Amino acid sequence: MERLSMYLHQDKGGLWLTESERDNLKLNYRIKEVVFEQQSRFQHVMILDCYDFGRMLVLDGAVQTTSMDGHIYNEMITHLPLTLHPDPRRVLIIGGGDCGAAREACKYRQVEQLDMVEIDELVVQACKAHLPQVSGNLSDPRVNFIYADGVEFVKQAKGKYDVIIVDSSDPVGPATQLFELDFYRNLHHALKEDGMMVCQSQSPIFQPEVMAQTLGRIDSLFPHTHMYWAVVPTYPGGMWSFTLGSKRPVDFDRCANFDKEATYANKDVLSGCFQLPQFVKALLDEEKSVHI
Amino acid sequence: MERLSMYLHQDKGGLWLTESERDNLKLNYRIKEVVFEQQSRFQHVMILDCYDFGRMLVLDGAVQTTSMDGHIYNEMITHLPLTLHPDPRRVLIIGGGDCGAAREACKYRQVEQLDMVEIDELVVQACKAHLPQVSGNLSDPRVNFIYADGVEFVKQAKGKYDVIIVDSSDPVGPATQLFELDFYRNLHHALKEDGMMVCQSQSPIFQPEVMAQTLGRIDSLFPHTHMYWAVVPTYPGGMWSFTLGSKRPVDFDRCANFDKEATYANKDVLSGCFQLPQFVKALLDEEKSVHI
Repeated sequence: MERLSMYLHQDKGGLWLTESERDNLKLNYRIKEVVFEQQSRFQHVMILDCYDFGRMLVLDGAVQTTSMDGHIYNEMITHLPLTLHPDPRRVLIIGGGDCGAAREACKYRQVEQLDMVEIDELVVQACKAHLPQVSGNLSDPRVNFIYADGVEFVKQAKGKYDVIIVDSSDPVGPATQLFELDFYRNLHHALKEDGMMVCQSQSPIFQPEVMAQTLGRIDSLFPHTHMYWAVVPTYPGGMWSFTLGSKRPVDFDRCANFDKEATYANKDVLSGCFQLPQFVKALLDEEKSVHI
Repeated sequence: MERLSMYLHQDKGGLWLTESERDNLKLNYRIKEVVFEQQSRFQHVMILDCYDFGRMLVLDGAVQTTSMDGHIYNEMITHLPLTLHPDPRRVLIIGGGDCGAAREACKYRQVEQLDMVEIDELVVQACKAHLPQVSGNLSDPRVNFIYADGVEFVKQAKGKYDVIIVDSSDPVGPATQLFELDFYRNLHHALKEDGMMVCQSQSPIFQPEVMAQTLGRIDSLFPHTHMYWAVVPTYPGGMWSFTLGSKRPVDFDRCANFDKEATYANKDVLSGCFQLPQFVKALLDEEKSVHI
């Protein structure tokens, strides 16, 4: 139990996790139980059972996804490209160790092959075993789990995928590369000629520079680039942005075809999520005028 | 400085405010400076200067609005009814002590009279003096500040207003009455025959029952009831709901006329905010089947 003290502490009312990534805002979650805890080669992995949010995945002390709201992020990063692409047969997910994005992608019968490239096998194992609310009981034969570095993996893939989903963590440490122009260029090469990619592009409120820069970089490679957003209650700021890059014009009318069972997504939400608040539009216009 | 200890504490990195309304989730804000602090007849009032969020209004230790995101809530509670109503001349705001809703309403030239009924004069004074980012330098001659109990005030008003905005705090203590059927019935009477009301109806994530009940109650009085939502980063869950009740059918095409300067709102956001996530729709459908 030595490591527990690093991220958890006893206080009034029991056991608490304090998120301390940010200097000026700290969130404390009251914990019922430590369900799983292990150090992998890459990071410290915990599944905690938490009051109000249910079970959650915590990496190096930072909450990644919770049973209460994990579906929102996973639905929104998956259903947009898979609904907007006319024929998504071969799909690549980079990251996404909680298996939630793969679970949503498996709802599409057209998908024939789903390669999920996650660097940390322990995250996948922990989520499959202890976080079924997010991972589902993911055992679809179309899913190939590939435990490797996504940055290296895409260098080898040429013209192979219809859709690529980049479900990365924040741009600190190794994940920084998943926000670089070189990486996006490799994604572009890994996609077929009518391919489409999507990535999470951080919070418009707390990381406006990363968001604008991501859009700028993808826009410099793809002829059709669109930003959309969703509410993600357990991410700081509550609002999250996603950037979609497509080699072909995007037919937004396809949102009306959406027929999957989902908790956050529906036809209205899919078509409405491209309507950006004014301050986000302003940030992006500014970015365009100083194009990278 | 005795009272300080009630809500603030010294810790690593300086002075902190810990919000403790919730049992299982605590938010800690790092504070630069206590700008204003005083006990009114009704509550403990502070204006704090905070890292990341700027100045904020804190009542009885709970963050009400911040310079960083206060505009979102205030724009969304105001611009929807004032854009959707064809001729909003007489407007009543109940609550709204931070003056942000009144400030937005003053952007409409058609508004001839704006009665703002706030129970606590100290909140208005503190926000006008120390929270200009939210209150503006509100000195529009059309605004009548009335320091009174909103519940009692609306009992006396009959067929007087085009638009009523209920900018209440959470339904605990005295504000509970602002969520009661009797209060909504008095609002209905206080409105002209083509009048429209809007109220905040809490978080779909943390107070789904209050949200659904509010819609149910307003729907039992008004022939046309619509729910909409916005992101409010500093409210728990990040997602906030608003309920609009109208005596006449609502012409949503009017959203395309929106031409005010705003930070969050624009034409797309105003028309898009009625597109509800699937779980919110499901909650409301459930409410309708057990109509109160």
